[in-house]
Amino acid sequence: MGPGDDATAKDIECAFEIGKGIAEQGWVLLTGGRNVGVMDAASKGAKEAGGLTIGILPGANRSSMSDFVDIPIVTDMGSARNNINVLSCDFVIACGSGLGTASEIMLALKANKLVLFINQEQSLLNFLDKHSSQKFHRYTSPKHLIDSIAAIL
Amino acid sequence: MGPGDDATAKDIECAFEIGKGIAEQGWVLLTGGRNVGVMDAASKGAKEAGGLTIGILPGANRSSMSDFVDIPIVTDMGSARNNINVLSCDFVIACGSGLGTASEIMLALKANKLVLFINQEQSLLNFLDKHSSQKFHRYTSPKHLIDSIAAIL
Amino acid sequence: MGPGDDATAKDIECAFEIGKGIAEQGWVLLTGGRNVGVMDAASKGAKEAGGLTIGILPGANRSSMSDFVDIPIVTDMGSARNNINVLSCDFVIACGSGLGTASEIMLALKANKLVLFINQEQSLLNFLDKHSSQKFHRYTSPKHLIDSIAAIL
Amino acid sequence: MGPGDDATAKDIECAFEIGKGIAEQGWVLLTGGRNVGVMDAASKGAKEAGGLTIGILPGANRSSMSDFVDIPIVTDMGSARNNINVLSCDFVIACGSGLGTASEIMLALKANKLVLFINQEQSLLNFLDKHSSQKFHRYTSPKHLIDSIAAIL
Repeated sequence: MGPGDDATAKDIECAFEIGKGIAEQGWVLLTGGRNVGVMDAASKGAKEAGGLTIGILPGANRSSMSDFVDIPIVTDMGSARNNINVLSCDFVIACGSGLGTASEIMLALKANKLVLFINQEQSLLNFLDKHSSQKFHRYTSPKHLIDSIAAIL
Repeated sequence: MGPGDDATAKDIECAFEIGKGIAEQGWVLLTGGRNVGVMDAASKGAKEAGGLTIGILPGANRSSMSDFVDIPIVTDMGSARNNINVLSCDFVIACGSGLGTASEIMLALKANKLVLFINQEQSLLNFLDKHSSQKFHRYTSPKHLIDSIAAIL
Repeated sequence: MGPGDDATAKDIECAFEIGKGIAEQGWVLLTGGRNVGVMDAASKGAKEAGGLTIGILPGANRSSMSDFVDIPIVTDMGSARNNINVLSCDFVIACGSGLGTASEIMLALKANKLVLFINQEQSLLNFLDKHSSQKFHRYTSPKHLIDSIAAIL
Repeated sequence: MGPGDDATAKDIECAFEIGKGIAEQGWVLLTGGRNVGVMDAASKGAKEAGGLTIGILPGANRSSMSDFVDIPIVTDMGSARNNINVLSCDFVIACGSGLGTASEIMLALKANKLVLFINQEQSLLNFLDKHSSQKFHRYTSPKHLIDSIAAIL
């Protein structure tokens, strides 16, 4: 999970590496499916490593789908699809920050999903430390983040 | 799409053959994902032929998931997930009949999806003939149904 | 519940009378909220009798809302909002017929809601007789339909 | 909007006063509809002043509904109903803080709704200052908050 139109260059770069790492491990990547930002970059990275990519689209058709999504799920639910994104994952990786990403982080923690952070703002982490019983996993390197999930599995 | 708990033996048999046929063609199977009826049988057929299966689950977790679903999408939306089922497919195959299946057929036709019928009741087909501009495709053999889709693609 | 753009003159007339009857009884009217067909006519009838009207809108804003809706609920869920319509009602009245209306009837029966029919097609009723354990209430007069609900309450 | 089970005594007190103030102005109160925390207290306050209350329930029936909700909307969508809450309001009032409330704040800002804050944590406000173009309205008194909305209308 991560910003779409407002993703930074660093978010995009991390997302690509994380997507690639997920595919190299043989895991399946699930994103919000659109052709922008972190969703697009992670899907591109996963496809470069021959992985399988799922995209949970907000619209009523595939018009804004990333070229790197194998399996589009068309929800026609707008931002309410964020809840499906987090409920369908085994692990939620939050790469970068923004309003939509923050809503997914909140929903993921509410559903007791393990959330791993990279490129996250301190103010949001301060808020989460107070409201979630989860001990947060914060990373600066995509490789360490992927290794950390592999160690849990 | 097809009945869950109320599926007939014939529905189950057809669903298995259709799932298998979809996988043999190299297509992806999408179902409602539960471990009963047509969803379960179609997924089982697809896995027997080495296919990929998606399950759009109604609940908040994977507790009622078919063993033959590769990719569970957890919606926590109950019957409202039926709309996601039909919007996400290229072709909708209605195998057997029931209230839930009929709701999916209506939503699929409303979204201008091509619907192919097998084991369908005449009363419902009579209703649809009057309300949809689509020329209906009715089959008695799973093989003919799959061949018919292959001919369109 | 009833057709939008495809409502017949008779559907519209019945919907207006039913909306009026609901308001005269002091009940609350809930519809799909758009400014067409049965939704619009029922809301208009209810307002003429000083009633309260709720509209469960499919879009992301109020742009297609009936002028006779007091309380718009904005879902941004398209046809998936049909499930909310039926789950939120004490009684479901199906006035007229169409694909969307039929999907709501199926979802209502699946959720064990009592459905009352007016202007319904025989082919759909034949299908429902076979698939629902509910004994159907079919009416030709809006007044009898309202009286019948009043007698149950 | 505000916390359910984790609401503080101060959140509850503010919510009651805000609900009462909304009703005194002749406005309609919309909450998440459950019988706990800020939802329940705001609905109770509104009913004490003779107002109208809407509750957008997460479950498939009315089992956890506040006694002070007049119009229950039954969504069966779990936390995805949070998006309906914010899309249906003219103004979003965030009273207190928590994961669910924060998800609603994010969705509201994403949908360009005006959000008014009371009892909010500084860490979350710091995050929002960076990610929303909206100038935030922060209040310590329910009365000032209500007066402020009245001045806009």
